[in-house]
Amino acid sequence: MLDTPPKNVTINKIYYKKTADPVSDKWDVPISTTAKNCRNYIREIVDNLNLEPNPNKKVIALSIGDPTVYGNLVPAKETTDALIETVLNGKHNGYGGSCGLDCSRNAVAEYLSYDGVEVQAEDVILCSGCSSSLDLCITVLADGTRGQNILVPKPGFPIYRTLAESMGVEVRHYDLLPEENWELDLDDVESKIDSKTAAIVINNPSNPCGSVYSEEHLRNVLRLAERNKIPIIADEIYERLVFPGNKFVSVASLGAKVPLLICGGLAKRFLVPGWRLGWIVVHDPVGAFAAVRKGLVCLSQRIIGSNTLVQGAMTKILLETPQSFHDELMNTLIETANIAYEEIGKIRGLKPFMPQGAMYMMVQIKSECFPQFNDGLEFVSKLMEEESTFCLPGEAFGLGGYMRIIITVPKELMVEACERLANFCNKYYKPKPCQLLPPVSIE
Amino acid sequence: MLDTPPKNVTINKIYYKKTADPVSDKWDVPISTTAKNCRNYIREIVDNLNLEPNPNKKVIALSIGDPTVYGNLVPAKETTDALIETVLNGKHNGYGGSCGLDCSRNAVAEYLSYDGVEVQAEDVILCSGCSSSLDLCITVLADGTRGQNILVPKPGFPIYRTLAESMGVEVRHYDLLPEENWELDLDDVESKIDSKTAAIVINNPSNPCGSVYSEEHLRNVLRLAERNKIPIIADEIYERLVFPGNKFVSVASLGAKVPLLICGGLAKRFLVPGWRLGWIVVHDPVGAFAAVRKGLVCLSQRIIGSNTLVQGAMTKILLETPQSFHDELMNTLIETANIAYEEIGKIRGLKPFMPQGAMYMMVQIKSECFPQFNDGLEFVSKLMEEESTFCLPGEAFGLGGYMRIIITVPKELMVEACERLANFCNKYYKPKPCQLLPPVSIE
Repeated sequence: MLDTPPKNVTINKIYYKKTADPVSDKWDVPISTTAKNCRNYIREIVDNLNLEPNPNKKVIALSIGDPTVYGNLVPAKETTDALIETVLNGKHNGYGGSCGLDCSRNAVAEYLSYDGVEVQAEDVILCSGCSSSLDLCITVLADGTRGQNILVPKPGFPIYRTLAESMGVEVRHYDLLPEENWELDLDDVESKIDSKTAAIVINNPSNPCGSVYSEEHLRNVLRLAERNKIPIIADEIYERLVFPGNKFVSVASLGAKVPLLICGGLAKRFLVPGWRLGWIVVHDPVGAFAAVRKGLVCLSQRIIGSNTLVQGAMTKILLETPQSFHDELMNTLIETANIAYEEIGKIRGLKPFMPQGAMYMMVQIKSECFPQFNDGLEFVSKLMEEESTFCLPGEAFGLGGYMRIIITVPKELMVEACERLANFCNKYYKPKPCQLLPPVSIE
Repeated sequence: MLDTPPKNVTINKIYYKKTADPVSDKWDVPISTTAKNCRNYIREIVDNLNLEPNPNKKVIALSIGDPTVYGNLVPAKETTDALIETVLNGKHNGYGGSCGLDCSRNAVAEYLSYDGVEVQAEDVILCSGCSSSLDLCITVLADGTRGQNILVPKPGFPIYRTLAESMGVEVRHYDLLPEENWELDLDDVESKIDSKTAAIVINNPSNPCGSVYSEEHLRNVLRLAERNKIPIIADEIYERLVFPGNKFVSVASLGAKVPLLICGGLAKRFLVPGWRLGWIVVHDPVGAFAAVRKGLVCLSQRIIGSNTLVQGAMTKILLETPQSFHDELMNTLIETANIAYEEIGKIRGLKPFMPQGAMYMMVQIKSECFPQFNDGLEFVSKLMEEESTFCLPGEAFGLGGYMRIIITVPKELMVEACERLANFCNKYYKPKPCQLLPPVSIE
């Protein structure tokens, strides 16, 4: 290598470009655009908050999306027994193939074949958690180098944005409608579509909203996708996590002529998020996904699949966990949700949105009632400072003026948290100045 | 959206580009460049071979890089016991953080702190298997959008190429020298470096070569890296898997002023490749990796870490597995390697290269002795057809004229495989035609 070009050579830019930079004593190791664009939006927001709790009160974190963290929700005995059995039989220590073991893919296919949906093992790709499933789906469909974009919900889980933007893919947020059960604003969705739109991401049941979409609404979404010929990535990680009286409808069950990638996993319904077992199911009713199937298989080879012990246990986990386990979980969640809804509903200045499923509740902070705070971020910081209670601000999901609380905490903790919220709001609540009615003229 | 532009608007390209494509009844779902460029080179080569075994002979696969596949090599009892204990204590079902649990990162740090190396927990990032570790390292350092390249060994494991090319990063192969213990051809390495070179990947002990590099050679590699200011990604997944009488030297132990990313994992030394527990260790003796550390943390959030049950068991696995387990494994491997080396050494037309570690042996196919076959691909296909014995052709690792055999099969199977190889080669071996000496003129 040349430190400087030889004297007798004409220096021009092309010559320089082809040779290495002059050797220097300084290291300069830049990171890739992908790494630079890979951002964790929740962390960025939370890290910028001043989150000193009140030293006289124990912290209640209503922010953590890990249902196992308080120890009140534990996986079924069938789940842990199946895992131990797999370790003991010693047959699942080797590589499982990048898309997963046949038996495990079969188990997922059988588990998801209901309500008229028929899934085959070859439609299933196992991944290292549902984040990895979403990663593969976004990466296979959307091409940053071609200037493509994807549509994601607002409010919505920021992982979609993290994954897409790190691959150079533009993210366009479409509105959900709080007063209409957080349904998609279909006009807004359609207005965001252009020829570069590679996929629409929908999330049902929803994090952070806790909404569960009706069949009718999903049909409207599918019609929109079909009309515009945009495939759907459906994040159904909260699949069948719906409260009694509600029904989970998978987009796959509606027979629409729309190619779909459905993402799911064990994390939430089986209470084992750390086990990192996610899946993608390819639904291709119009024969549009031949290349996508192949591409997903190729991409899965980058990290060669998910943990094989969990894979070995999946048949028992998915197919032999008793319904009573799922029912109990949902009963526990709705009890906690009911407490939160009732108690927060009494607090002046807050408006809770009753979820129909998943593990979260959105609470609106009526900003006009708390003029002291410039935004939700200040509100939640002050709440932490005074009441040692932390709720994730809606800003983490792209929507200010709200906060998301988890309903996976023990009930007594939710009661306590609601009392603290009430204390706090009562202290800062400022009623809106009375609007004088216009004088009525009596004739 | 408009199907066709309104009549009264002048049609120009800009107008059309800004609107969506006309709606049609046909779906056209292209895949991303990343997915398209994500290729599995071993699979592509193997799938193109005609691999019909001899129906009268049971297949012996000397090709499979999974040490657990024949059942003769099993993990230590300490390893499986630790896993079961973790399942039973119920404390590791939740998310572990994207870089891994503190206790598990601590265990890796302690496990790798030897020979003067001092690793801290915060230098460790846990990943979903070593493939995922390599993925993160290549992705953080090399930027396809800036036309960067990485250098990888030839012969070498093709995952480096799969990972890099899918991110648009150019791969440049540098030669290993078969007759010099498969050391790096340093001149060749240096000739491939330019200003766009983002990293040099080295693999020690090596797959497919089984070579274990001397301290002196590694110092030369480090000097080259330092002189050119190129960081090293060291794939040390076969760390300490060396035969008696050899010594594994980590590049991290040599105190060089070169920033290093060391990749490793449980897969090989603990015989649990399916458990998908890999790691990256950041060594930054020159303070060049501040952005890289941050970038790795960000990238790890794309899939939120590895299986937490394995993480929970890691302290026991890494620190309490008795040395006798490791010794027995290496004794078994060298016995099988000795059989292969001795028996293949007797076969005319083949030349085995005795490994010093890892789980593989390279065997040269002297093409001039087998004129019947155009290349190693035809050789291994015919060997399968007649002797039901499959060896991975060197082409899978970028180097024709060789094949890689695994030394992880049971000994009796290796004996049988060598007999078959001898049969086959004896049948097809053609001695080189005698070169007539030129007439000697006697004065």
